[in-house]
Parts: sequence; structure tokens; C-alpha cells
Amino acid sequence: MIDRLSERIKQLNNPSVVGLDPTLEMIPAEIKERYFAELGETPAAAAGMFFEFNRGLIDAFADLVPAVKPQIAMYEKYGLDGLGAYIDTIAYAKSRGLIVIGDIKRGDIASTAEAYAAHIGGTKIGEREFDLWQEDAVTLNPYLGSDSIEPFISYCNQCDRGLFILVKTSNPGSNELQELLCEGEPLYMKVAALVAGWGAKAMGKCGYSRIGAVVGATHPEQGRALRAALPRIFFLVPGYGAQGGTAEDLRGYFDKDGGGVLVNSSRGIIAAYRKAGTEDYAEAARQAVLAMRDDLNRVRCG
Amino acid sequence: MIDRLSERIKQLNNPSVVGLDPTLEMIPAEIKERYFAELGETPAAAAGMFFEFNRGLIDAFADLVPAVKPQIAMYEKYGLDGLGAYIDTIAYAKSRGLIVIGDIKRGDIASTAEAYAAHIGGTKIGEREFDLWQEDAVTLNPYLGSDSIEPFISYCNQCDRGLFILVKTSNPGSNELQELLCEGEPLYMKVAALVAGWGAKAMGKCGYSRIGAVVGATHPEQGRALRAALPRIFFLVPGYGAQGGTAEDLRGYFDKDGGGVLVNSSRGIIAAYRKAGTEDYAEAARQAVLAMRDDLNRVRCG
Repeated sequence: MIDRLSERIKQLNNPSVVGLDPTLEMIPAEIKERYFAELGETPAAAAGMFFEFNRGLIDAFADLVPAVKPQIAMYEKYGLDGLGAYIDTIAYAKSRGLIVIGDIKRGDIASTAEAYAAHIGGTKIGEREFDLWQEDAVTLNPYLGSDSIEPFISYCNQCDRGLFILVKTSNPGSNELQELLCEGEPLYMKVAALVAGWGAKAMGKCGYSRIGAVVGATHPEQGRALRAALPRIFFLVPGYGAQGGTAEDLRGYFDKDGGGVLVNSSRGIIAAYRKAGTEDYAEAARQAVLAMRDDLNRVRCG
Repeated sequence: MIDRLSERIKQLNNPSVVGLDPTLEMIPAEIKERYFAELGETPAAAAGMFFEFNRGLIDAFADLVPAVKPQIAMYEKYGLDGLGAYIDTIAYAKSRGLIVIGDIKRGDIASTAEAYAAHIGGTKIGEREFDLWQEDAVTLNPYLGSDSIEPFISYCNQCDRGLFILVKTSNPGSNELQELLCEGEPLYMKVAALVAGWGAKAMGKCGYSRIGAVVGATHPEQGRALRAALPRIFFLVPGYGAQGGTAEDLRGYFDKDGGGVLVNSSRGIIAAYRKAGTEDYAEAARQAVLAMRDDLNRVRCG
């Protein structure tokens, strides 16, 4: 997964990932009204419009970006119907050649982590094996420590899947715990040291580990420090665009070849049509992807 | 929710919660074979047997315990079918008068937390409101800070629901980050201070907040320190039984009236029939619940 991601970023000359995080408010009126008319104001209608919206988005930029990152919460909000749309979106994105990062941020004790690892490792029932969730990679929360991560690591290697562990998140509240000074360095650097250790157990061929780190675009200093500390760790970077991170902020995140980084934008791409004052949400998303690509390439060398 | 929980613990003289965390290995042979025969080795069969198993368990001890705690990962492993069994289990437990704590350990940035908050706050679609997940309370991970928790707090108050925030977890890896010395005290005490602040915004009438803390039974010293630091915070305590925590370890967790604590056991109750050498899993679970109740009451005053 990490080798394919690294290669696709080079082929497409684009280190972006699009966050497929729909809300009802974002769905274009024509689509929304059609589903409400057919299915009423129901979870099934929400799920139907999310999947149609996502399909239109994926078709608009599948030839431009290496990956998409659906945020499972946006779907979980709509119960089983919503989660059905999450899975359908993943399957469709993969059918269009995209790498899929499931933004699930799970984290639990070992026996439970083993169950969550079905997201990337599949589910065995009797003699049969199912890949019910189908993500190529998922995000995880490190607060419970190594035994909460290890069940996933073996699947990374067995099934060539990936992980991105929260290190320094993009939100304002991230300073409350992540920046605490712990035995001489901020907590996020302690987490980074754990990630380096986990990462060493799952190296890809491209020079990066199958285990990456989530590093918010909104903290450029911390991003630079983390790049220096984690030369073999791929960064998944949220917070560009709508959350306030700029391409300039990301200069220190890329490695010397302009690699090692995947920058996420969600609202900035998928709701671009609203700012552009058009109903053609797919074309607006495509244009936003092109603008983001060029913006990022301005600052990365390589 | 916290008032009802506190009251039910007193009425039943039982501070236990049963973790409904089924695995295929735990399902009695007769049930498993029947579902596999009917539905094949499929997620639907797994979901069907989980729900039947849980129903039998709930019927066996609904008059003895105040609450159950299904671990969502065990169901998520089986995809949409599995999550259907999770929701059906919650609905059935509530129909039998039990309080339901969804062990979901979610945690994400504000806009995403707002979506996850549907677990306790419901989902609005157009003019309609749905309670798709139905938990009375959920567990959350604090690593992202206040903006990841706040969307849930308003629902705690509006809808009388509850939260249990991870402070000190029961697993071996919990020492790696949670015990780091941060500005003079261990990280878990910093998290405890945040929980105290969040808790003050959602006080119940019983003297405890609607926002509780997860404090593992396997760390008695830390448990005592946390009780002293958090006099108004209810503790959800995993790690008793199969994970090694004993009643003796919990002496310092209870308040002076023997309240403020809910002790979880999962495998020790729901798989008790295997140790007991019987096929009557429900009766074995009932006996295990009674033994756990008496064991805990031995050490708590009040």
C-alpha cells in the first residue's frame, strides 16, 4: 500500500488526498430533493445521496489524485444505512484505482484491537474469509499504547495494508494533551518515538514504513520537528484549506525529494461548488483538486 | 442517565456491568451450528448467533445488574450485519430495563465529533429525528482534547446521556503514554483534570457528573489517586476478572458510601459456562454475576 501510494503520488505529481466527508448541508439541492422525494427524510435517503455525491466526486478526480479518505463518522451518524454508503464508497473508489484510507481513529485493548483490525485484515468466519470494510489503510489513536496497535501491524505486513497513527492533530484542542512537556519533550514527540518503533516493524520497499503518522498542517513547527525525528514515516496531513493550513506551512513536512507526505482536503474540495457559485459540484471539485495540486507543488521540491 | 445508574446500583446492591463482547469462539456449539447450518459461514450467521447469545444472557441477569456494555468492535468486525446485532442488542437490553454503555472509544476533531455524537444525541434528517444507535452512554478517547469532547457534552445535558472518558486503561500498554511524567504528574492525571472540567459542565442530581472516567482495575494505586482527584466523577472500571483485577484492588476506587464505581466483566461472565463445564451458558452467567456482586460487595462499604 505505501509503495503504491508513493508511486502514484509521483506518477500523478500530486501529494493530495480528498476527504470524502459529506454532510446533508453539502449535498447539491437537486440530488437531495430527489432522494428525499423518493425515500422520505430517512437514513436510507441520506445514504443514497452520500453515495451518489461521492461517486460523482470520484469520477471527477480519479485521474488526478492517488487516494481518498472517507471519514467514517459522517456515515456512522446515519446508522447502518450510512455505513453501507461508506462501504459502497470505498468499493467504488477502489474500482476507479484509488487508494482508500479509512479515517476511523480506533484504539482499544489488544483483544478488541484484534477485532477492529478486521478493517484492514478481513474477517474469518469458519473456513471463509471476508473483506467487509475494504480500506487499504486506516487511522488509529495511540493513547492505549503498543498492544492497541500491534494486532494491526501484522495485517499491514501480511495483507500489504497501512496505518496512520495520530501524532499531532490539526484541531485547536490538540495542544491540551499533545503539547504537554513529558520528561523533556512534548507528548507528541513521545508518540512519534512509539510510531518510529512500530514503523520499523513494517517497512515498505519505497523507503517508507507501512505505518505512517497523522500530523496536522496547522502546526508547521511541530511538523518540521516530526519530519526530522521520523525520516521513514509517511505523514498524512489534515488541516490544509478549510482548517487554515497553507502550502507554505508544509515546506518542512516533505522530505528532500518532495515525498513522504499526503495532504488531505475535505470541504475545500467536495464543497468547492458552493464557493464557486455553480451547481456542477463535480467540475468544481476537479478544479479545486487541480488548484490544490499546483499549490502544493509550488512548495515541494523533488 | 447517571442518576438512574446510581439509583439502580443501590436498588440492586450491585455495582457491576456486564460486557457483551461475544466472539465466535464463545458461542455455544448448539447455537453456532444452527446458524451456520441455516445461513452458512456468513456475517449474517455471526450476527444472528451474537444476538441470540446476548438475548439469552440479558434474560439471565436483567434482574441482577444495572447495566450492560457492548464493545462495538466485536460487532464491527462482522460489518453491517454485525453492527445490526449491536443495535438489536442495545434495543433489547433497554427493553429489559438495563442501562446501555456503548464501548465505542471514539475521538475526533470538532466537526467529526459532532457526527459521532449521534450515538447519544440522535440524528436529524430534514424535520425528522432518529435515535439510530440508542446508547445511554458511550466511552470516548481524550487524545484530541476538549473540542473532541464538547459536542457530546451538550447532548449529555439535553438528552440525559452519559460519557466515560479514557483516563487510565486496564491494558499493559497503558503505561507507555498514560504514565509519562508530564509537568510534574503522570499524563493520566492531566487527563483527569480535563475530565473534572468537562464533568463540571454536566452534573447529575446524584452528586456525580454525567461525564465519568474509565479507570482500569489493574492499577490500584492510580485508581486511589484518581478517586481523590475526582470526587464527582463516576468510574467505569474494566479489567476485573479475566484481565487480572481483583475486588481487593478496587477498595480505593469506591467513595465513602460505596458508590461512584461501575465494574465491568466481560469474558468472566459471558463465557463462564466454559469454565463451569456446562452447556447452560445463561445460568452459568447468572451464577457468575451473583459471585461477582458478592465479591465486590465484600470490599465496598456503604
